[in-house]
Amino acid sequence: MSTLGNPANIFWHECPVGKAEREKLLNQQGCVVWITGLSGSGKSTLACSLGRELHTRGNLSYVLDGDNLRHGLNKNLGFSAEDRTENIRRVGEVSKLFADAGLICIASLISPYRKDRDACRALFPDKSFIEVFMNMPLELCEGRDPKGLYKLARTGKIKGFTGIDDPYEPPLNCEIEIQQKDGVVPTPHEMAGQVVSYMEGRGFLKAQ
Amino acid sequence: MSTLGNPANIFWHECPVGKAEREKLLNQQGCVVWITGLSGSGKSTLACSLGRELHTRGNLSYVLDGDNLRHGLNKNLGFSAEDRTENIRRVGEVSKLFADAGLICIASLISPYRKDRDACRALFPDKSFIEVFMNMPLELCEGRDPKGLYKLARTGKIKGFTGIDDPYEPPLNCEIEIQQKDGVVPTPHEMAGQVVSYMEGRGFLKAQ
Repeated sequence: MSTLGNPANIFWHECPVGKAEREKLLNQQGCVVWITGLSGSGKSTLACSLGRELHTRGNLSYVLDGDNLRHGLNKNLGFSAEDRTENIRRVGEVSKLFADAGLICIASLISPYRKDRDACRALFPDKSFIEVFMNMPLELCEGRDPKGLYKLARTGKIKGFTGIDDPYEPPLNCEIEIQQKDGVVPTPHEMAGQVVSYMEGRGFLKAQ
Repeated sequence: MSTLGNPANIFWHECPVGKAEREKLLNQQGCVVWITGLSGSGKSTLACSLGRELHTRGNLSYVLDGDNLRHGLNKNLGFSAEDRTENIRRVGEVSKLFADAGLICIASLISPYRKDRDACRALFPDKSFIEVFMNMPLELCEGRDPKGLYKLARTGKIKGFTGIDDPYEPPLNCEIEIQQKDGVVPTPHEMAGQVVSYMEGRGFLKAQ
């Protein structure tokens, strides 16, 4: 039996260039902006708008999109409860690598379960996990139905669809909540501005 | 009223900030330097030295170390043939994300099987996969035995150890080969210099 699987045989290599040095090069602080919400709530829209806004300011960010990753890193995962958890775990771990590299990692996933999101948060003990809740009413998301998935879920052609026959557990203590004001959805630019303001206020957009 | 409610406006399949724009911001070209070789051949040493040299030049790189990743992204993988392949596949996919983010990703893994390395290479159709073979004799690596693993393998306490009772398949067409000259191992600085020269010659160290 191999003892290679024994953690004692897996070593940790410290490299001489660390996170702080990369952050100085980039003049920003590595972190993750974790965007959670129903399908159709505007996660990808915010991710793209935020990426554009940060780029305009000279900040380096990278979007990890849940759907896109299922074509690559997570292509061997399905939609069982176990696979969904593993899907989110991997995105959390990759987000951590990007943050450690000094980037502002923008992760955009439905990530419906609190325990899965909290497990990702736990990877970032230095308060660099910024949870953004797209708090849009189900009716609005379903009305948009950009991928036609709600229709499939309502007619029973998709099972376990978040918001229809599988729960979405809203965050209890997220850093940022995006919602309608007086029944009006904020524009992509406004949503991005809300996140940028938060990040600026906490010093993420410059080196320490 | 927001235009978000219009499905035509939320279908942003592609993000407006792309690889080329990030590369321009960083003034370099995203790629992966994939370092392969026996345990003790100097992979981590080169990875760190290269990272330092690139940082000094103002380039942003990030090291993905096979051992380190087994504490995070790949902690649910063992050392069966199947798990080793999945381990390398995931590192390949993550390398691709980092290269797409505009970084010089330095992946340091034994990655003993040609088919696994070639599968990673296939993820980079634009010639941005730079395979570096640490071509050091087994005797040298075993003599170093920095982790004491060869000793465990020789006494049968580890099974399936690369170079002892599991094969290492040397690259057939790697971009860079690091080896002894007149029986002398190059210094970390010399090894990094060899890689940097290659990258500079092919224009990776500036934006296109």
